[in-house]
Amino acid sequence: MTFSLITGGAGFIGTNLARVLLERGFKVLVIDDLSLGRRDALPDVPDDGRLLFRQVDCADAEALGRAVMDAGIVVSEVWHLAANSDIPAGVEDPSVDLHRTFLTTFGVLKFMREFRVPSLRFASSSAIYGDHAGASLTETTGPWEPVSNYGAMKLASEAQIRAAVESWLQRADIFRFPNVVGIPATHGVILDFVRKLNRTPGVLDVLGDGAQCKPYIHVKDLVNAMLHITGQSGKYVVFNIGPADQGASVRLIAEAVRDHVSPDAEIRYGLGSKGWVGDVARVNYDISRLAATGWSSSRTSIEAVQQAVLDIAVQEARR
Amino acid sequence: MTFSLITGGAGFIGTNLARVLLERGFKVLVIDDLSLGRRDALPDVPDDGRLLFRQVDCADAEALGRAVMDAGIVVSEVWHLAANSDIPAGVEDPSVDLHRTFLTTFGVLKFMREFRVPSLRFASSSAIYGDHAGASLTETTGPWEPVSNYGAMKLASEAQIRAAVESWLQRADIFRFPNVVGIPATHGVILDFVRKLNRTPGVLDVLGDGAQCKPYIHVKDLVNAMLHITGQSGKYVVFNIGPADQGASVRLIAEAVRDHVSPDAEIRYGLGSKGWVGDVARVNYDISRLAATGWSSSRTSIEAVQQAVLDIAVQEARR
Repeated sequence: MTFSLITGGAGFIGTNLARVLLERGFKVLVIDDLSLGRRDALPDVPDDGRLLFRQVDCADAEALGRAVMDAGIVVSEVWHLAANSDIPAGVEDPSVDLHRTFLTTFGVLKFMREFRVPSLRFASSSAIYGDHAGASLTETTGPWEPVSNYGAMKLASEAQIRAAVESWLQRADIFRFPNVVGIPATHGVILDFVRKLNRTPGVLDVLGDGAQCKPYIHVKDLVNAMLHITGQSGKYVVFNIGPADQGASVRLIAEAVRDHVSPDAEIRYGLGSKGWVGDVARVNYDISRLAATGWSSSRTSIEAVQQAVLDIAVQEARR
Repeated sequence: MTFSLITGGAGFIGTNLARVLLERGFKVLVIDDLSLGRRDALPDVPDDGRLLFRQVDCADAEALGRAVMDAGIVVSEVWHLAANSDIPAGVEDPSVDLHRTFLTTFGVLKFMREFRVPSLRFASSSAIYGDHAGASLTETTGPWEPVSNYGAMKLASEAQIRAAVESWLQRADIFRFPNVVGIPATHGVILDFVRKLNRTPGVLDVLGDGAQCKPYIHVKDLVNAMLHITGQSGKYVVFNIGPADQGASVRLIAEAVRDHVSPDAEIRYGLGSKGWVGDVARVNYDISRLAATGWSSSRTSIEAVQQAVLDIAVQEARR
């Protein structure tokens, strides 16, 4: 009974990944502490033992090991997605990112070493690069100077994983995500805007001047890219993931949400190019390494945003 | 009563730094958990309150804060040197580097934020770069892929500090050390070789083929460079530190120790270019950023090694 284990598997990206892995015939053990994830967001599949769930904090390697032993399964790969996704919360209190992003990676690695799990797939982030003022970012562009604790703990996690590959881990895939949009949305700019307009339909207040411009990927394209990457050869495999475009601006996102949710609303912008401490105003993501493997996103950044606005508006209407 | 606080201040580099800071008129609070440092290695100065010592694990921010309050002093800068210096120990058990290298940085930052200490000087390492197979390493050369948990936790510490500078920390100096030699030696290749020859004067067994080549700096030059760097302008100040040469080989070090300690000994080399998992065989360190500020080392790598052999042989004879 060989399973794929997904940490953070009840979260935004984890539930989408679990669904696709099940569709492709994998058996899946979802691990989630339910601090951000929701059990009812898991795929609605027959209770035939192909999808298991355990509520565990994966920073606790012993608890993770007990959960796997109790389930009586063998884990062949870990998709480590568990992390704090609330960047401002981690700027305010660094212990949030320490525990949920960094120590979860430490715990997962400890579990994997003890249980001889050969393969780790890790959800990293463009935030590891820091603010390069719009310069093009390949997978090797230095220096790496994250400007948020979120980015710092993602980089710190990558560093741990790289050292593990040198020592005992057979393979690691490092996925450097751009902004990811879609449902079930738990955070992010589109959800913020939709909720603001649902509360005050006449006005949408935007943090920053709206000129911030970053790449966005739809979660379905992201999951597709991750699975594609795991088919590439290598031992320590690092890819930027994103659409092949210059991204979408916050102004465009605000207008897309306004047009769909509350067409008569006034959009009011703030000052400055950054939305908050730890924000990066312009990300110019070079995805040529991924493109060279033959993968491309089915949606541009703008199309991803537009699709996610539709998805999220429906999600919020059903709450 | 404004003090400089040195974490790991009873260790190899810390005691040398404390001595120079005192000579330059600073008051110094040494913090050390004495897991590797030794209290009797502290500078032998008059008990006039200019040098204080507290045995504290600086990963415990509350304990650090209590020590400072009990001493009734104000801390104007922290020199964060506390770390695990035993690289193989951290490969064997990652929790060693987690606690002694990474969580000490987390604790120090937490203390500094609460006590509004404006300035952090951090002992980082060439190990953050990983193995670039002898390619030249500037401060911005990517990717940063440490091959030991030691290097991983130093990189992880840098990342935390960078994020703190974005948010609340006024200034950080990041010193990327090469191999540092001198006394009081607690670890390292020269001490290993001296002790081996003291035990078995007829033979010196060397891990690896002896071709490993890295830059070495004498601890007195290192302290001098750190103080020079703190005089440079900037908010997040990063420098590779080292001599302006191609380094010294392990073969040269073995011969220097043999010639001084036991001239008739046979040197027996092992196989392979690396001494241990997490070792980097060739480090080609670009120090042109530091040279451009007008600083240069008083000793080459080879001279630093030769001086340290003399220093350490005397230290070991007195044990």
